[in-house]
Amino acid sequence: MAKNIAILGSTGSIGTQTLDVVRHVPGLKVWGLTAHENIDLLEKQVVEFEPVLVAVMNERKAEELSMRLSGRKVTVLAGLEGLVQVATMTEIDTVVTSVVGNVGLKPTFAAIQAGKDIALANKETLVSAGELMINAVKQYQVNMYPVDSEHSAIFQCLQGNSGNPISRLLLTASGGPFRGRTQNELKHVTAADALKHPNWSMGKKISIDSATLMNKGLEVIEAKWLFDVELSQIEVLVHPQSIVHSAVEYEDHSIIAQLGEHDMRVAIQYALTYPERVVNPYPKVDFTVRNNLTFEKPDMETFRCLKLAYQAIETGGTMCAVLNGANEVAVERFLAGEIGFLDIAAVIERTMQAHAVIYQYSLEDLLAADEWAKQHAAQIRF
Amino acid sequence: MAKNIAILGSTGSIGTQTLDVVRHVPGLKVWGLTAHENIDLLEKQVVEFEPVLVAVMNERKAEELSMRLSGRKVTVLAGLEGLVQVATMTEIDTVVTSVVGNVGLKPTFAAIQAGKDIALANKETLVSAGELMINAVKQYQVNMYPVDSEHSAIFQCLQGNSGNPISRLLLTASGGPFRGRTQNELKHVTAADALKHPNWSMGKKISIDSATLMNKGLEVIEAKWLFDVELSQIEVLVHPQSIVHSAVEYEDHSIIAQLGEHDMRVAIQYALTYPERVVNPYPKVDFTVRNNLTFEKPDMETFRCLKLAYQAIETGGTMCAVLNGANEVAVERFLAGEIGFLDIAAVIERTMQAHAVIYQYSLEDLLAADEWAKQHAAQIRF
Repeated sequence: MAKNIAILGSTGSIGTQTLDVVRHVPGLKVWGLTAHENIDLLEKQVVEFEPVLVAVMNERKAEELSMRLSGRKVTVLAGLEGLVQVATMTEIDTVVTSVVGNVGLKPTFAAIQAGKDIALANKETLVSAGELMINAVKQYQVNMYPVDSEHSAIFQCLQGNSGNPISRLLLTASGGPFRGRTQNELKHVTAADALKHPNWSMGKKISIDSATLMNKGLEVIEAKWLFDVELSQIEVLVHPQSIVHSAVEYEDHSIIAQLGEHDMRVAIQYALTYPERVVNPYPKVDFTVRNNLTFEKPDMETFRCLKLAYQAIETGGTMCAVLNGANEVAVERFLAGEIGFLDIAAVIERTMQAHAVIYQYSLEDLLAADEWAKQHAAQIRF
Repeated sequence: MAKNIAILGSTGSIGTQTLDVVRHVPGLKVWGLTAHENIDLLEKQVVEFEPVLVAVMNERKAEELSMRLSGRKVTVLAGLEGLVQVATMTEIDTVVTSVVGNVGLKPTFAAIQAGKDIALANKETLVSAGELMINAVKQYQVNMYPVDSEHSAIFQCLQGNSGNPISRLLLTASGGPFRGRTQNELKHVTAADALKHPNWSMGKKISIDSATLMNKGLEVIEAKWLFDVELSQIEVLVHPQSIVHSAVEYEDHSIIAQLGEHDMRVAIQYALTYPERVVNPYPKVDFTVRNNLTFEKPDMETFRCLKLAYQAIETGGTMCAVLNGANEVAVERFLAGEIGFLDIAAVIERTMQAHAVIYQYSLEDLLAADEWAKQHAAQIRF
């Protein structure tokens, strides 16, 4: 297996883990890297992986990195246009889209149009722009391989079943730190409480999304686009141990599940080596330790963000971009102590209610809807 | 999908469930049926499914059935030669081998040589004669589809992964009614105790095999032949709820598992419709009910039959036939109150120790080894 890749967002969590995968998988070659502004780490990555093209969103930082790397055979580009150039460079087969936020949309869209396969880690690509992106994936006949553990699990469970209709997708959720609590008990929880994830440590935004179950809501939307199923076929299943990464039930009532330890690198690797599976040094499940796997229904009345996500994808059009934009601001406001935990859902709901949906949208319409949602969400008072 | 089948042992548990599958799957047509001696049920099956050829092991019963069916377009054969004729009839694609015991060997071998696919439910085929059968499967280029829940699960988990080396097969076991007990506690258990299976009701022989874990030992041997792995790659995992039917771990440490309710018909159906999955009325898993799945290591010091099975397949040659033959007699003797529960393993072990293994064997050698083992096991005194 030989594959040439570019990584958008190589200094973030998924980006650095992707580079760890590259270290262990023979045949993966990094041609391009991009970062938001962490040029110290990007510089080290350039030295180790020797890409020919890198881009930094922050233009001043891009200039600084360019000077630091002046002796090397690497070109440093700046800004969103730089990301687009890295994502579309002729040498590469696959773009790993591990940037966070809307900044991922344009480079990902450009990469698809340039015929690149996508190893998808950027949530906004399908949450905000799912219809647009999936239509482009079909039009340009590229592959979109999920990198998220849950979607990778479903993708793995679908192998060897082409043509067999899906009965249900079982999307597992850890349930977050507040699993089992009531609305009343959640009224006064703080950001510090919400940041304590039971199974792993993550960035602040994603930790709060995990606590509200919005994270799972966004994954429902992604699953809808990735796997082309009816919304009613996507069932969220709370599974606190997070060993079953997700599952597919077929029409014969046979369920195929994918299990593993908590290590994103297995999913990243599969997205890059598919359909091959490559030996790696990552942990394997010891069932004498992981000896008790439990399941329960999500409480969508308490964790209303999940319900709002179902509503947004049901509405369609620009509504998912609005859900996502409003959520971003609501989480920021909660982290800043401006609003309570339960207000996160309220901010999103009110923003969704105020939105005039556009059903036939362009990428610009989506970005505008997102911007509108953020401004609206920022101004809601309780 | 259209498939013409014959069922060897159509009046038994797997046989009747196979016919239930035929009722629900369009395109399956029954051309042949066989029974040991239950001609009342076989007669009803002939009326419903209209096979053109049936066979009854018991020659007197065959004659009686022939008279009862004299007005119909069906030929009734007798004895083992009759089974072989049904298994090799030109019209059929697939033979479901759901007969119990060594009687399955000759018809199955003949079916393979006649180019028929096998839906395998007869344990002896691979337990006693694995090497011989698998070599024939390769030579005659037929397919052998497992019908057992565990092996069907593994087969399902292997789909879409051709060429990806297996790291481990995780063969799940309910653990039987005596899970967690010590040798001392098992000294005086009775046949009645052993027949109380926690998850389902089965025939007496298989219930005792489940209580001793010999059932799982036999499945280890079958898995070794079906999936061509090293013995060290087959790991038995006690899973009392029996929802995870088995799993495959790949070299990237990703585990693919198959789950379902306790219903053999899903596995039978998959063996007959593969690679298609067909809608059926069988129960589906409700994870709010099946909300706690547990796993533990098997206690091979207490449940020595499992260890003996590993030893038998490690030795190879005729030793697995001896294990199986000795077990059959030991279980009969236990059911008759002649020996204690723990003596089952002792009888098998002593018989194995007394056996002079033949490594290059014919089907006749196997049948002779089995016969020798049964006689030897019958005479062991404590």
